[in-house]
Amino acid sequence: MTYAAFQTAIGRINDVLCTLNLLNWDSRTVMPSGGVAARAHQIATLTDIARDMATDPRLADLMDSIQTNDPLEARAVAQARAEIDVLRKIPAQIISDMASLKTHANAAWVAARADNDFAGYAPVLKQMIGLQREVAAAIGTGGHPYDAMVQLYEPGMTYARLTAIYDQLKTALVPLIRAAADGPQPRTDILTRSYPIAAQRKFGLRMAQAMGYDLTHGRLDDTVHPFEISFTRDDVRITSRFRDTWLPGGLFALWHEAGHGMYEQGIDPAFTRSVFATDLSNLYAVGGASFGMHESQSRLWENRVGRSRQFWALHYGDLRATFPDQLSEVTEDDFWRAVNAVRPSTIRVEADELTYDMHIILRSEIEAGLMIGEIEVDDLPGLWADKMNSYLGVTVPDDRQGVLQDVHWSHGYIGSFPTYTLGNIMSSQLFAKASGDPTIKAGLDRADYAPLHGWLRDNVWRHGRSSSPAETLERVTGGPLDPAAYITDLSTKVGALLA
Amino acid sequence: MTYAAFQTAIGRINDVLCTLNLLNWDSRTVMPSGGVAARAHQIATLTDIARDMATDPRLADLMDSIQTNDPLEARAVAQARAEIDVLRKIPAQIISDMASLKTHANAAWVAARADNDFAGYAPVLKQMIGLQREVAAAIGTGGHPYDAMVQLYEPGMTYARLTAIYDQLKTALVPLIRAAADGPQPRTDILTRSYPIAAQRKFGLRMAQAMGYDLTHGRLDDTVHPFEISFTRDDVRITSRFRDTWLPGGLFALWHEAGHGMYEQGIDPAFTRSVFATDLSNLYAVGGASFGMHESQSRLWENRVGRSRQFWALHYGDLRATFPDQLSEVTEDDFWRAVNAVRPSTIRVEADELTYDMHIILRSEIEAGLMIGEIEVDDLPGLWADKMNSYLGVTVPDDRQGVLQDVHWSHGYIGSFPTYTLGNIMSSQLFAKASGDPTIKAGLDRADYAPLHGWLRDNVWRHGRSSSPAETLERVTGGPLDPAAYITDLSTKVGALLA
Repeated sequence: MTYAAFQTAIGRINDVLCTLNLLNWDSRTVMPSGGVAARAHQIATLTDIARDMATDPRLADLMDSIQTNDPLEARAVAQARAEIDVLRKIPAQIISDMASLKTHANAAWVAARADNDFAGYAPVLKQMIGLQREVAAAIGTGGHPYDAMVQLYEPGMTYARLTAIYDQLKTALVPLIRAAADGPQPRTDILTRSYPIAAQRKFGLRMAQAMGYDLTHGRLDDTVHPFEISFTRDDVRITSRFRDTWLPGGLFALWHEAGHGMYEQGIDPAFTRSVFATDLSNLYAVGGASFGMHESQSRLWENRVGRSRQFWALHYGDLRATFPDQLSEVTEDDFWRAVNAVRPSTIRVEADELTYDMHIILRSEIEAGLMIGEIEVDDLPGLWADKMNSYLGVTVPDDRQGVLQDVHWSHGYIGSFPTYTLGNIMSSQLFAKASGDPTIKAGLDRADYAPLHGWLRDNVWRHGRSSSPAETLERVTGGPLDPAAYITDLSTKVGALLA
Repeated sequence: MTYAAFQTAIGRINDVLCTLNLLNWDSRTVMPSGGVAARAHQIATLTDIARDMATDPRLADLMDSIQTNDPLEARAVAQARAEIDVLRKIPAQIISDMASLKTHANAAWVAARADNDFAGYAPVLKQMIGLQREVAAAIGTGGHPYDAMVQLYEPGMTYARLTAIYDQLKTALVPLIRAAADGPQPRTDILTRSYPIAAQRKFGLRMAQAMGYDLTHGRLDDTVHPFEISFTRDDVRITSRFRDTWLPGGLFALWHEAGHGMYEQGIDPAFTRSVFATDLSNLYAVGGASFGMHESQSRLWENRVGRSRQFWALHYGDLRATFPDQLSEVTEDDFWRAVNAVRPSTIRVEADELTYDMHIILRSEIEAGLMIGEIEVDDLPGLWADKMNSYLGVTVPDDRQGVLQDVHWSHGYIGSFPTYTLGNIMSSQLFAKASGDPTIKAGLDRADYAPLHGWLRDNVWRHGRSSSPAETLERVTGGPLDPAAYITDLSTKVGALLA
């Protein structure tokens, strides 16, 4: 009876958070330009309401009064209590200050980026870092101040652990990147021909459906920045950004977001509107175990599947039939090489699979330094340029292509960057395990993605947030987080590209 | 200080109600089919939250403590109190019973309509009528029980008043309908040729923008049932339904909804998120004075402007340039006659301007009889057929084309039908006044709709809900609600059609 009341209370919070997701989806896809100010009020009010519901003392009392022998019920209550505790720890004043700062910071960032004026942005960024330091202190994990921020996105992760992983990656990737850059360069001009967008979308969506993305519980729209968002597992929407003269952009973004989308669609129906589909610390309706585990699924479908030699052996004929003029003299091998070209550059969102993590390592190191006070905002432009040069051998021509390139900090996201690399690592661990299964392998060999989809659903997706990333890896791969499989995947790919 | 707190509280309620409008817009336009069940939870939770906020005793205390000499502030408080009083009067048990019945009733209605099985629907309809009788008793206006229902949609209206208006209309319209039906029939085959939808939409939207519908604060989508909905005046969306072989359907629906939309876009910016943009009795974010006043604006642009001889004198060339093959041998006069053809039929939503109100009168009489217990559900099929025959001379072949045709009752809407006819009447009163202004008339003569748009904005729209329908009519036309201008408009039109 009390457990049912708890479920009802969480279900109502989930309803509000799903509605917030809809307010966000709408504002990013279809909202008329004039609707911005009103929407900000609606989002602020719904967020307040969700916070009040989650921190309502009656809910705390209810959770305290629950006695259950069911381990899943016990876990749900413990998890809700722990997540709400984090939420409670952040003083209302900081949240309110952060909310007003965000609007201001984003405008300042947009202006600074347009004018390449880091000095103009620095005062606002200092305020933001100051507030984030207060948040970290308020949450107070006892370890490195950055841990509190990272754990908002990746439960159980620490900066010490990240540092060890980053060291392994740097050691392995730097020589690989050099080898690839020194080797023969693929012809990438074939990707910049004119590819009509409607045909790109049709082909891309056909592939996403073949992978298992379900359009009766989803839809695809166009946005400047691709994303996935859900309002329960029954309505999981994705967006992509197609450009006429950059073929891989829209396609791989679509399969990336479809990977996120299949995760949400694959959660156990019994978990709908439950704790296991609700991130109460971040007040976010989501079914994935963590941001990193979520990213592992998008990267798995985008890179392990979509950028594989095998995928294009099976589907290049279809693509060429879609674009017969543009691809008439392009071979399957040309095409695979082009979409895997390694090109160190200054811009994270344009980075290839091999150089991507170096962008993340740089950001993580800077964020950690900022949080502990070893780095100050004024140091950033120089430090950024030094690290880019050291990790990727590229020169940052100006701050627009350096420290001003990402939107994250002005939105108040500190600590989310590491989850991109954690996702890459986990994608390889999970894919290595899955593709060792003869049925899944046979499926991949004949473009039947149902066995892989089913395996991921049963082993990862259906558990929602009832299984932590570490528990998931242990259960599925028999071990902890380990970059070895990812390094193997990248080494193998570079070897094939150089062959 | 207390007034500011009141404004904040109402603003937050408005935010939730605008969000509910978005949940509804989304579910009717873009939501994937699988999202229905989750959406129902979200709507139910947000509705509960809005009701709790509106009936919060702290808000009542706050309103009691406000002392103001500003008449607009005093009115805002009094209006909020009165609307919330109506909301409070309806017992929570009835609301909850109604909510569960609605889902069930709608499914039963859909099934009964498919099978022409009124007997199968009757038990559910009896429950619905029973609950609505309880609602009427709970609100308890002291007059006819139907008054309470009608006043939810049209403040100040009574069944006695409606009856007098209906008598005037019947007396005037029945002979006009007969005269038109007996006269020469226009060729309507020209409307059922193949008109590509993209071109219809483009032409229709160009006209809507010329009328003044603002796409930076709006958008047009396609739905089975056209509608308008807003999330503050800054985001006012409309939908239409275009069919390839029925040209007027999509066009006039678009201009109808654009009329609703311009009303919402035209409310005083100072009223955004205020009592004067919030219907607290119906828990609905809307800026119009009443459902009837809202309908007057849609009908004005659809019929007084869009179906006028003058409108097609100015725009038929554009339409013919859009569809040169389809309209090559069709004259401007042919076209105007076709879109004004009078054809008594059994279906309300397909009715022409002249016969439309007879459908409303029939429904109002039946609803009033049901509410006071003079009519019972089992009487409906026979009574419906008798009245259709008596008012329009048509035979109802089966209940699908009779009592089962409308969705309203299964959704719990009793008392909203009269607002369609009240809207028609007010559209003529307001248009007669406006077009007496030389500047407006000159504008209409040269397809410049800005003067009419500006006059409606200043005289009707900007006032939002701060002026009742009766006050608006008195202020603008110098008199009360009066069907004379509407009867004149219809008589003049029939005269022209017969000429």
